[in-house]
Amino acid sequence: MAECGRSAMDYKKAGVDIDAGNEVVRQITGLAKATATRGVLSDLGSFGGLFHLGASGLKDPVLVASADGVGTKLRLAFMSGIHGTIGMDLVNHCVNDILVQGAEPLFFLDYLATGRLDPDVAVQIVDGLARACRDNGCALLGGETAEMPGFYADGEYDVAGFIVGAVERTKVIDGRGIAAGDALVGLPSTGLHTNGYSLARSIAFDRLKLSVHDRVPELGTTVAEALLAPHRSYLPVVRPLLAGARPLVKGMAHITGGGITENLPRVLPAGTEAVVRLDAWNVPPIFQWLERAGGVPREDMLRTFNMGIGLILVVSRDRTAEVVDQIRNAGESGANVIGSIEPGGAGVVYEPRQP
Amino acid sequence: MAECGRSAMDYKKAGVDIDAGNEVVRQITGLAKATATRGVLSDLGSFGGLFHLGASGLKDPVLVASADGVGTKLRLAFMSGIHGTIGMDLVNHCVNDILVQGAEPLFFLDYLATGRLDPDVAVQIVDGLARACRDNGCALLGGETAEMPGFYADGEYDVAGFIVGAVERTKVIDGRGIAAGDALVGLPSTGLHTNGYSLARSIAFDRLKLSVHDRVPELGTTVAEALLAPHRSYLPVVRPLLAGARPLVKGMAHITGGGITENLPRVLPAGTEAVVRLDAWNVPPIFQWLERAGGVPREDMLRTFNMGIGLILVVSRDRTAEVVDQIRNAGESGANVIGSIEPGGAGVVYEPRQP
Repeated sequence: MAECGRSAMDYKKAGVDIDAGNEVVRQITGLAKATATRGVLSDLGSFGGLFHLGASGLKDPVLVASADGVGTKLRLAFMSGIHGTIGMDLVNHCVNDILVQGAEPLFFLDYLATGRLDPDVAVQIVDGLARACRDNGCALLGGETAEMPGFYADGEYDVAGFIVGAVERTKVIDGRGIAAGDALVGLPSTGLHTNGYSLARSIAFDRLKLSVHDRVPELGTTVAEALLAPHRSYLPVVRPLLAGARPLVKGMAHITGGGITENLPRVLPAGTEAVVRLDAWNVPPIFQWLERAGGVPREDMLRTFNMGIGLILVVSRDRTAEVVDQIRNAGESGANVIGSIEPGGAGVVYEPRQP
Repeated sequence: MAECGRSAMDYKKAGVDIDAGNEVVRQITGLAKATATRGVLSDLGSFGGLFHLGASGLKDPVLVASADGVGTKLRLAFMSGIHGTIGMDLVNHCVNDILVQGAEPLFFLDYLATGRLDPDVAVQIVDGLARACRDNGCALLGGETAEMPGFYADGEYDVAGFIVGAVERTKVIDGRGIAAGDALVGLPSTGLHTNGYSLARSIAFDRLKLSVHDRVPELGTTVAEALLAPHRSYLPVVRPLLAGARPLVKGMAHITGGGITENLPRVLPAGTEAVVRLDAWNVPPIFQWLERAGGVPREDMLRTFNMGIGLILVVSRDRTAEVVDQIRNAGESGANVIGSIEPGGAGVVYEPRQP
């Protein structure tokens, strides 16, 4: 009030709007409540979320936990104003990351950070998280919405997810039984999932000078539609393979950053290598388009993108037909044998050999 | 290579350096390994971190989980180049958030996001996380280091933490037994902890035009030293109160964003209010200095900062002396009775009444 004097400062003037934050928390709480499963004991308002492990019915549970983000796929959301699928990307990515060790998801927490909170956008994001949690039978147990003035540009945010699942100790999948002769079964991806976006954006926007709303003839969709296709969860189609006393798969690799080249070796025992037959599946148009338009060497494509294979199962040769059948019965007709485990140094060998 | 032609693009050119990332992961893996507790089953390299719940020895475990960030305290780290204590802030904040429901921490995961990864800074941050995890008997089970070109300014980052703890179902602390007549025991904070930094920075840097390295006579330290004082963990001093068949505390509030005013009501049952006596403890110099220099109304101070009280325990009047004694035996001599629970509307009443 006083000229050239000291005006009172409060938190709101310093850029943090506690009341707007409380309103978002109220809406988010409603969305989260709708995801509650049998184990959930607390409302979101308490300091920590409570989950009663007895509800899982496991005798000797091993908890499997993972943290992840959506990476620069977020920029597609910023450019297109479509924020409703980012939450699905994040939850499904996390679900797959613990699924590969045999775990069913129990609960999920999010961290959403912005410069200045746009309540509509925050609610869209959490709505996506909550829908994906429900689809995966996973409780949205809590989260943090942080307003950090000056950290994020206007209209931008970052979001991280944290998942905890559980698996019976005797049924943890750790790749230990993998041996030469095993088959690799690939499950189709729905697009880039959440990886390779820095390169994809460089190609689409810097090199081709496209806008997100431009149609790409090769794809039959707009750039935004193609690049925002949500990361899928493999839980529904893999769950039946894990149901028996002994899981039908020996190991699984979620194909994320680093592609097949870097992710498949993470489950290979010493003395083995993976031979992947590149002619065993059709690389989807989105990857062909990026490869061609960017002049990206095939080797870099395979080390960056999933190339149409989002999850790889390692299976005994003699159970392969049974596994592919069960996956088909669970609603996925696109499973393919894409290679095998062979004696060798750790790593992935692609056939036919790349020039 | 070709002039005005299409040069090949790869992921590295698009701003993501996988090799530098792998080197950081290698160092981080070493730091995380040193935090392993009895329950940890996996190395950090697998897709998810594995924790064997049987190691906790609990009969009917309830998992308590929380997600949090450090907020704009990070800017102090950016300005001063001191990144080694941010991890302690984050872990200790999370530990306290689940401690208030009676949980011992089991494991922690981090999400660290930057524009371009500075390996030294990343390792400093994770070193702080790992040290705090060790101090709290909590495994650093995994995490995600995300390089997101263009999302964060040079030299900046954001970091989020996720914690999972466990408590015997019969010993969950939920404030249900709280009744009029109970005493409030306050435990001293070590400074601002991780809240109120947007306002504190406005006062120190925008209004007073100080630099982080300036000494503040009222504090006897530099601005950076005062504002980077790490958030403390209350686990060592509260643990003994939870050890018996029935916990010695009825409820606890971690005083974070929103101060005593917003956090204490989160544990109050309907029909009660908290009366907090402001003359029961000495408000530390850092808060007095901010209040005076910013001309901040006392009410806003109490709704923004912890004002020297980082954790409040709600205790039966007749157990108060025993609780204060046990806290003293655990090494904390600064515990004080700071008020009481009274019949009333939900909320906090400060005495003497503020003008």
